[in-house]
Amino acid sequence: MSVDAVDFLQHVSEYAFEVDTYIMNHPFVSLLRPSEVREGFLGYLQQGGKRLRPFLVKTCCELVGGESFQALPAAAAVEVYHTWTLVHDDIIDRDDLRRGRPTLHRQFAEHAGKNNGVPGPLREHYGQSLSMLIGDMQHGFAIMLLSDLHYVLDEAVVVELIREMCGPLLLHLMAGEVRDVQLAFQVGARPSLKDLIEMMSGKTAALLEFCVTAGTTAGTGVFEPFNSPTRELREFALNCGIAFQIHDDILGLVGDEKILGKPIGSDLREGKYTPLMHFALERAPARLRERLLGALGDSGLTAEDVREVREIFQEVGALGEARRLAESYLGRARKALAQLEPSEPLEKLEQWAEFLLQRKF
Amino acid sequence: MSVDAVDFLQHVSEYAFEVDTYIMNHPFVSLLRPSEVREGFLGYLQQGGKRLRPFLVKTCCELVGGESFQALPAAAAVEVYHTWTLVHDDIIDRDDLRRGRPTLHRQFAEHAGKNNGVPGPLREHYGQSLSMLIGDMQHGFAIMLLSDLHYVLDEAVVVELIREMCGPLLLHLMAGEVRDVQLAFQVGARPSLKDLIEMMSGKTAALLEFCVTAGTTAGTGVFEPFNSPTRELREFALNCGIAFQIHDDILGLVGDEKILGKPIGSDLREGKYTPLMHFALERAPARLRERLLGALGDSGLTAEDVREVREIFQEVGALGEARRLAESYLGRARKALAQLEPSEPLEKLEQWAEFLLQRKF
Repeated sequence: MSVDAVDFLQHVSEYAFEVDTYIMNHPFVSLLRPSEVREGFLGYLQQGGKRLRPFLVKTCCELVGGESFQALPAAAAVEVYHTWTLVHDDIIDRDDLRRGRPTLHRQFAEHAGKNNGVPGPLREHYGQSLSMLIGDMQHGFAIMLLSDLHYVLDEAVVVELIREMCGPLLLHLMAGEVRDVQLAFQVGARPSLKDLIEMMSGKTAALLEFCVTAGTTAGTGVFEPFNSPTRELREFALNCGIAFQIHDDILGLVGDEKILGKPIGSDLREGKYTPLMHFALERAPARLRERLLGALGDSGLTAEDVREVREIFQEVGALGEARRLAESYLGRARKALAQLEPSEPLEKLEQWAEFLLQRKF
Repeated sequence: MSVDAVDFLQHVSEYAFEVDTYIMNHPFVSLLRPSEVREGFLGYLQQGGKRLRPFLVKTCCELVGGESFQALPAAAAVEVYHTWTLVHDDIIDRDDLRRGRPTLHRQFAEHAGKNNGVPGPLREHYGQSLSMLIGDMQHGFAIMLLSDLHYVLDEAVVVELIREMCGPLLLHLMAGEVRDVQLAFQVGARPSLKDLIEMMSGKTAALLEFCVTAGTTAGTGVFEPFNSPTRELREFALNCGIAFQIHDDILGLVGDEKILGKPIGSDLREGKYTPLMHFALERAPARLRERLLGALGDSGLTAEDVREVREIFQEVGALGEARRLAESYLGRARKALAQLEPSEPLEKLEQWAEFLLQRKF
């Protein structure tokens, strides 16, 4: 690792500590009862993570000449906002693991058996119910955190940011989620690449765009999402988000299970249709195509089956094509950034993007 | 029905129309895609309902000298807020019916089979997933609607109201929901009457208290939830909410199935522990107590079984005691109101409370 990269990571982790401290000590959190709810509420937040979204907020704030403390409530807000979508997502996907530990609904299900006298067949339902409510609380808490900006910003601007979060961001994000659910459950759905990119821009990139807007607004005190430099920074964030999601799907198939925190091929078993699968089906001869379609959504796939699918992806060149697609979005992101004056925060954004695409979990 | 009551209902339904028009024509709604999502999003709102919460907002606004149009965004916000909690509640309860029609997650499940090619065993899961996301969207939309108040109020006051919704209201409401889930799933849970009242104050009364605060704030332009008359009006709303919930539980057992819109005794089958059950268990001799505890949470109860339980409730005097409890909370509500100067809006609030406790569905 270069000295620069070490410096960058040092920077990221220092800020993560600041953000976490802000969240954990918030009155909203102190008032959560009973203790199992508070623990569930903080669970994903305490399982680590690099706080890359808060870092984006802060760096955009600095880029427009703001002090990083001005961005802190917004930085905390986007992390908590991200968390509620994870909690609800895990319920939808019925995932058992996140970052190598049981998902929240699984934790509550296990807890229900041990401590709360909930009979066996009802435990899953109990866990899903409680974690849905936890996600709901986190959703409201995120908006509360964003509204904390009224300590440093004009209230009219705070209202604009809240409306951006509850309007465009939510609509964009949920459109992606809904599409994802529809595709995951439909037998034989074959979305186009454009469809897949649109879904990714909703599921992942919309929140990154919001991070930019929140950061520059906190830094300047003015809400102007479509003026320079917010416009270029949003373009940067959008493309980073899509590149990141493609990369993430690749990792889900060729990554390291221990670092990934969940079994390799779980997307495949769940029937998740990714650009990787799209390219493979486009390129594979009929016989292999049958094999791929048979594997998609087959919850009984063994590690050996998954390895076979991976080899097909490799062989027909789908892996390479997906990687090139991710690279091309990263290229667009860099191009957007190149329109702005060089500065120290700008360099940090470049490092941020690089880190995003290098991450293994 | 008295002339007054007819007048009152006329008034309520006129305002319901205004509120619905505001909601249905909102840009947020126009931007919802695809159409099945928009239909699901508006579903419960289009199934009628008296809009008693919006009416409370409006009347409190008028009581402090405001014009009703000033309260409109807040009135719309509380109705949509109420709706998202219903949608998530129905998923938790796995209820099939609401107001005589399939619940949202059931609608999506049926739709999934007919139009979207989702295989049978996955349809329930699909319906629950989509309706959870719809509830999430309604949650954000409610805050968006509340923030529309910035057209008529100082933004600093709007931020205060948003913080009240995302902080105290949400925490209070969710504490009630969590307790409800815990009790519903625990075998043999025997909460105290105090526990039950606390749960009701969270699940039902917290939002009514918020209606008051939103209404008076919209009317005066000042956020002072703990000063008169908001303090007394909140006391009124809190007690009405508890009375209403006790009444509602009674109706669930002795009401008219057709008007209720769901089978009599469904609370009983779901194992919902109500004040009614509390009183019955306290008063019943050992033999009948066994019968009651056996019936609680038995999903196989026939209409005949439910009738038997109802007779036990009647016989041991639990029905009468629950009714007296509801009356006593209504009494407290009236006492709170009596502290304020007589006025036309005050009379409307009295009628509102009476109507609340007379409603059959």
